[in-house]
Amino acid sequence: MNKITQLIHVDEHILMALREDISCEDISTNSVINEAVTATAELICKEDGVIAGLSVFKRVFELLDADFSIEFSAADGDAVQNKQVIGILKGDIRAMLSGERTALNYLQRMSGIATYTSKVASLLQGSGVKLVDTRKTTPGMRVFEKYAVKVGGGGNHRYNLSDCVMLKDNHVAAAGGIKPAIERARAYAPFVTKVEVEVESLEQLLEAIEAGADIIMLDNMDVPTMKEAVSITNGRAILECSGNVTKENISGLLDTGVDYISSGALTHSAPILDLSLKNLRPLNE
Amino acid sequence: MNKITQLIHVDEHILMALREDISCEDISTNSVINEAVTATAELICKEDGVIAGLSVFKRVFELLDADFSIEFSAADGDAVQNKQVIGILKGDIRAMLSGERTALNYLQRMSGIATYTSKVASLLQGSGVKLVDTRKTTPGMRVFEKYAVKVGGGGNHRYNLSDCVMLKDNHVAAAGGIKPAIERARAYAPFVTKVEVEVESLEQLLEAIEAGADIIMLDNMDVPTMKEAVSITNGRAILECSGNVTKENISGLLDTGVDYISSGALTHSAPILDLSLKNLRPLNE
Amino acid sequence: MNKITQLIHVDEHILMALREDISCEDISTNSVINEAVTATAELICKEDGVIAGLSVFKRVFELLDADFSIEFSAADGDAVQNKQVIGILKGDIRAMLSGERTALNYLQRMSGIATYTSKVASLLQGSGVKLVDTRKTTPGMRVFEKYAVKVGGGGNHRYNLSDCVMLKDNHVAAAGGIKPAIERARAYAPFVTKVEVEVESLEQLLEAIEAGADIIMLDNMDVPTMKEAVSITNGRAILECSGNVTKENISGLLDTGVDYISSGALTHSAPILDLSLKNLRPLNE
Amino acid sequence: MNKITQLIHVDEHILMALREDISCEDISTNSVINEAVTATAELICKEDGVIAGLSVFKRVFELLDADFSIEFSAADGDAVQNKQVIGILKGDIRAMLSGERTALNYLQRMSGIATYTSKVASLLQGSGVKLVDTRKTTPGMRVFEKYAVKVGGGGNHRYNLSDCVMLKDNHVAAAGGIKPAIERARAYAPFVTKVEVEVESLEQLLEAIEAGADIIMLDNMDVPTMKEAVSITNGRAILECSGNVTKENISGLLDTGVDYISSGALTHSAPILDLSLKNLRPLNE
Amino acid sequence: MNKITQLIHVDEHILMALREDISCEDISTNSVINEAVTATAELICKEDGVIAGLSVFKRVFELLDADFSIEFSAADGDAVQNKQVIGILKGDIRAMLSGERTALNYLQRMSGIATYTSKVASLLQGSGVKLVDTRKTTPGMRVFEKYAVKVGGGGNHRYNLSDCVMLKDNHVAAAGGIKPAIERARAYAPFVTKVEVEVESLEQLLEAIEAGADIIMLDNMDVPTMKEAVSITNGRAILECSGNVTKENISGLLDTGVDYISSGALTHSAPILDLSLKNLRPLNE
Amino acid sequence: MNKITQLIHVDEHILMALREDISCEDISTNSVINEAVTATAELICKEDGVIAGLSVFKRVFELLDADFSIEFSAADGDAVQNKQVIGILKGDIRAMLSGERTALNYLQRMSGIATYTSKVASLLQGSGVKLVDTRKTTPGMRVFEKYAVKVGGGGNHRYNLSDCVMLKDNHVAAAGGIKPAIERARAYAPFVTKVEVEVESLEQLLEAIEAGADIIMLDNMDVPTMKEAVSITNGRAILECSGNVTKENISGLLDTGVDYISSGALTHSAPILDLSLKNLRPLNE
Repeated sequence: MNKITQLIHVDEHILMALREDISCEDISTNSVINEAVTATAELICKEDGVIAGLSVFKRVFELLDADFSIEFSAADGDAVQNKQVIGILKGDIRAMLSGERTALNYLQRMSGIATYTSKVASLLQGSGVKLVDTRKTTPGMRVFEKYAVKVGGGGNHRYNLSDCVMLKDNHVAAAGGIKPAIERARAYAPFVTKVEVEVESLEQLLEAIEAGADIIMLDNMDVPTMKEAVSITNGRAILECSGNVTKENISGLLDTGVDYISSGALTHSAPILDLSLKNLRPLNE
Repeated sequence: MNKITQLIHVDEHILMALREDISCEDISTNSVINEAVTATAELICKEDGVIAGLSVFKRVFELLDADFSIEFSAADGDAVQNKQVIGILKGDIRAMLSGERTALNYLQRMSGIATYTSKVASLLQGSGVKLVDTRKTTPGMRVFEKYAVKVGGGGNHRYNLSDCVMLKDNHVAAAGGIKPAIERARAYAPFVTKVEVEVESLEQLLEAIEAGADIIMLDNMDVPTMKEAVSITNGRAILECSGNVTKENISGLLDTGVDYISSGALTHSAPILDLSLKNLRPLNE
Repeated sequence: MNKITQLIHVDEHILMALREDISCEDISTNSVINEAVTATAELICKEDGVIAGLSVFKRVFELLDADFSIEFSAADGDAVQNKQVIGILKGDIRAMLSGERTALNYLQRMSGIATYTSKVASLLQGSGVKLVDTRKTTPGMRVFEKYAVKVGGGGNHRYNLSDCVMLKDNHVAAAGGIKPAIERARAYAPFVTKVEVEVESLEQLLEAIEAGADIIMLDNMDVPTMKEAVSITNGRAILECSGNVTKENISGLLDTGVDYISSGALTHSAPILDLSLKNLRPLNE
Repeated sequence: MNKITQLIHVDEHILMALREDISCEDISTNSVINEAVTATAELICKEDGVIAGLSVFKRVFELLDADFSIEFSAADGDAVQNKQVIGILKGDIRAMLSGERTALNYLQRMSGIATYTSKVASLLQGSGVKLVDTRKTTPGMRVFEKYAVKVGGGGNHRYNLSDCVMLKDNHVAAAGGIKPAIERARAYAPFVTKVEVEVESLEQLLEAIEAGADIIMLDNMDVPTMKEAVSITNGRAILECSGNVTKENISGLLDTGVDYISSGALTHSAPILDLSLKNLRPLNE
Repeated sequence: MNKITQLIHVDEHILMALREDISCEDISTNSVINEAVTATAELICKEDGVIAGLSVFKRVFELLDADFSIEFSAADGDAVQNKQVIGILKGDIRAMLSGERTALNYLQRMSGIATYTSKVASLLQGSGVKLVDTRKTTPGMRVFEKYAVKVGGGGNHRYNLSDCVMLKDNHVAAAGGIKPAIERARAYAPFVTKVEVEVESLEQLLEAIEAGADIIMLDNMDVPTMKEAVSITNGRAILECSGNVTKENISGLLDTGVDYISSGALTHSAPILDLSLKNLRPLNE
Repeated sequence: MNKITQLIHVDEHILMALREDISCEDISTNSVINEAVTATAELICKEDGVIAGLSVFKRVFELLDADFSIEFSAADGDAVQNKQVIGILKGDIRAMLSGERTALNYLQRMSGIATYTSKVASLLQGSGVKLVDTRKTTPGMRVFEKYAVKVGGGGNHRYNLSDCVMLKDNHVAAAGGIKPAIERARAYAPFVTKVEVEVESLEQLLEAIEAGADIIMLDNMDVPTMKEAVSITNGRAILECSGNVTKENISGLLDTGVDYISSGALTHSAPILDLSLKNLRPLNE
């Protein structure tokens, strides 16, 4: 993950998570260990997948122990396998015991998203269609989850409501049609912003193209209609297809010719990738 | 969700999530609607499940619109069905459009956890074994996720590292054995705290019982060994069984006689429950 | 200002500003007034200009006094004149005395920016060139200052580093040329993001057009070169001209044919608009 | 700027400003540079003025890059000239590109205030009258702006509402006169606090002196009346003159004999000093 | 307590305290009460003293229950007696049970300080010497504790390091003497700030008077020396006496003629005043 | 104090306290010292007691001066004596002068609590009864105060409302009796949580034992009744005695046979331990 993003956004998130997990102190660890003991441990995969979030994992321990170090034998985006050791940690055993769960909670989720995204993206391979995420992320976790999608081989759709115009049916209705909606957006939004509009029919598609939409989302169209939409558009706008896309149903969309398929499942329904800290051992034992 | 928890913990989380989704403004909505318009909308299920988080969903809109109201026809814990309308919203259309995604991101995740938990818990019905969660939650989301587990019919294990002693293998090793580990915990931790210890063998189990552990976690034991453990323990401690429990593999554990089965999957791998805001309509249209 | 932006971003900024001005208490007011006294006061212009930020001004007092009200006789964007009364305040005299300076500090700055922007924008009237702002805002004040630019008749350029790609000379150098820089940005940035690139010569301009830049910034070109750039571009990209634009030197740029002129001075060097709270009077006196 | 003030107040302000400018990431820089590259750059003046805020400028980069260094050839308070190089930066090119705008936004504003203050203060040279600022600062920026006034040769009036009693007309009215207002303030405020009162006539002046005011502000008096006020006061109180003082109109006040002239314009209407980062070059190129 | 101080400083402190006491939820109350029940309760004194902090006490419950109300039969500063009912609370029983401890923790401490201060102040009655506090407050609690001192009949010394110059022995040493220290302070500090200096001998006292110190603190002088100091000073500066003043040893200082006696014990060693919530009863029972 | 607790909870508390004491700057120190000067100083006891909080004391200075160091000749829990030097500080004199009061405010309070606790605990020596604290702590200071109790030889009762069930009279009343209250708590609270219940009579005691309470608090019972309670209980539950326990009245409780005595006075009424920074000297003097 980008170092600057990590410094200004991730550090405070990790501290919040640590405070969530340690209201006052880790009473178990403090019961049995009352001074610094340097130890090593291994980060091990417990199933195959794609790893994502190693710098976040590491940062949790660094924030608890300034002398903490970790030697990774894999990098974000690598395919990893069950039983593979992907990092050797070294530092104060108390930081490892108290930070383990929080660090894994980040890494397992991020890697789960990367793994799931990778699987879906592989189904698109060669089709020319690109897979992107949505804003259906866990509250507070967007910076982690959108990064994990990229690591898994997907692309990002808009980050939030402030960086792209996306006119949905209700916006169109409020404006009195697709054309006035796009015109109002051009007048209101910063000119550096692209305008995307959602259409439900080929008539609306034409109206959107003529009004100069940058991106058009085909909402709930069947495959033949989507193909016709691609043919009508003929490169005059970027076409996106959405709507409950999962790895089970994506294959039907591949030859529609749309440019992007967006899938909320990448971030809202990916199971974690199972990872574990093992072989924690005090040095000089 | 408890009203006081919501006031002191949830409100600030929601504001953080809204700021994550709205860096400066919702440019789409503000392009087309520039004054208050009262509207209604429906909250609709798009698949069967158990609903959880309705008060959080509602609170997102209340924070954006002091006059917002919602009439629910279901309550947390209810089984809901595909196409069921579970709430009628009324308020400023801008608040609905700008808050929709954030509100659904909470509700879908919480309901997904409740639904998954409910399915797993139903497999335990009649067995006398109780299902509980773990600390394998999404960073920052524990208060929501543990609540959703309860709504789904599960129980909660400890909230965090500060409210229960849980001595794992590394703690035991650091203390030089199960007995000294438990003794040190009794000496160190507040006396109101239960002491749980993880054991890997029947010898360790006996040592733990004799040292007066309140709860003993049977780690990675096979079913026959667990049954023997139950027999040996004979009520002298609470027994918990853990380790990659999912709804696929839980049935084998039912007749072991353990008291609790804890499962990280409840919070770390439940897919969301699909829900949607539909039929948004300005009043007096 | 948009109500939702105000609720999630402005309220906390105002509280921060009030804490800056009141470390513990307003000792002057508390010395002489020790209970609630309802009073009225007038918000008066002390010079001609364009008003911006009335809802922020009002909000300062509302946060200090739940019963505070204000009746405005002008709205954001209105031209106001010296001695014009633009609002009648009513509320607890202590809130007015303690909040006055903070409320005016917002309103005066925002109105100063709107006034200055309005003057510059009027010079562009009829030219087809649009005036936009930059990121040269006061740290922490961007949401207020960019809003004030719009109120004054200007447009907004990108809000921050996350919502638009802007490739400057150093980015181009790092990528090894304009074409590879644009290609890398298309590959890396969300597809909903426009790509702007800064060019210093007509050769670079051509390269940028061919690489498909959405927006091209003409950096430090003289007027004849800009005209040639417009002619070469011929609508294939949006052209922006930047560089120390002020109301003194803008007229020379009007007939170049560029689409946008961006000016940092709108936000970094506009003097305030002088405004004052007057005729504060306890009711029933 | 004082190091302790910087640690406890400035660091968090800078982080807030960086988060304002980087919602998630700097997509332009991250598109073209994906690993650490050490570079140098020059901080250059683009017009004559007085520099202020160098340690704040430096701190922005330090917070993004622990190995960042900068060699300054000028210090806060120095007169600097167009084209003068005042610092050589060295560090990760990504930190420089992502932090540049925020760092300059602080430095340009602070230097603008120092430059403007210096010009006004020079007009007072030899007159015995001292120039001070007001609370008319940008919300959230007071610690930076009041420091810049001092760097420019001005003095500071009270920091905020909590550290000095300043009885204005409304306070006087609420107390029922100047004498009772001062008496109440003496009784209420900490005894370490000076009491200042605003007077509008020579009668009020006398009343204030007799009541033992420490400082008396002459509000909107013409020059002859001010001179008479000075004569009447005869050293029994400090006299301050206020009211729309700018560098254009200050000369008329010099021989009135007042002790202090306060000017809001120092902080609310000073244009920035133009500064720039130039010649950014990767090392070993 | 002043309403504005309460809104901008106290609310967030109370929320912090509630989060300290409720990491996730009040499990006891939520176990037995799962819906709103309106109840009443009595706030009762369990020993004689002076009450302080009633609005803070009330605010804790208001933040947990918007419909909460309380009818007080005493006001801050009143002498209260063992068994006296000083307030009738009415609101949701869950808010009362969950907020009780936090609300009492504020009220008991503040009332303890007011009670202790009142006792010490009464010893000074008629002597012309005024009692003031110090900065020896509990971290984070200054706004509450200094208010309580005033309620108890004491005065406040400076609020913090920013609002008054206090030159101690180390400052004097760093400046090279009392005179240069005072001169530097006059040159550096805002002119609205009083300058206090600590002296250890009559020679230093004279130097301080001649250098124009506003306030002089007599450090560790015996009573005869203090009397001489008063005589020497003869009204040319305010004299303060400090150093481990408690209610046990204060009487010896009364006839020294100093103006102020400051005592850290008021805030750092006052025991609480015992108060209790009693007779909590659901309505309509 | 545990290093991890310190990093995630204490650092931010110290920064808050420093901001409370330094609104903008330490004007006294900055008046006389305008650059870094390395100095040493001694931390000295001014009365006998038990020291607690040395790492917090040190951390205040470290946060203000990265090069600060301190050599302690005592450790938390040590008995210290009047005039004993317990630490030699070395660092920037400005950090020492500006941080001194805040650092001492923590250390004096924590040591005061440890000292008082130690005195009370010593009265219990040999009796088999253990002394524990309560939730009657200063708002925001619980992590410091509960730690100090342990340092002084006491134990901790529950940290807050979330980590132990404590059923008081009102909870019992709401549930309709002791048995249903305990049953509801067992059903609602995490199974890792102990259940404590308050009883006012021997009948209630029996009911609590039979319902399986883990801990029973004997509320306001006289000594003979307590002895009978102990005899009835006969080890079937842990017994706690509470209610205005101070060092003056504790001796009467020693031979009752209860397991724990809890005392609010430990944290709410302990006077500070007087400590001082002395002999501050610039190096190379």
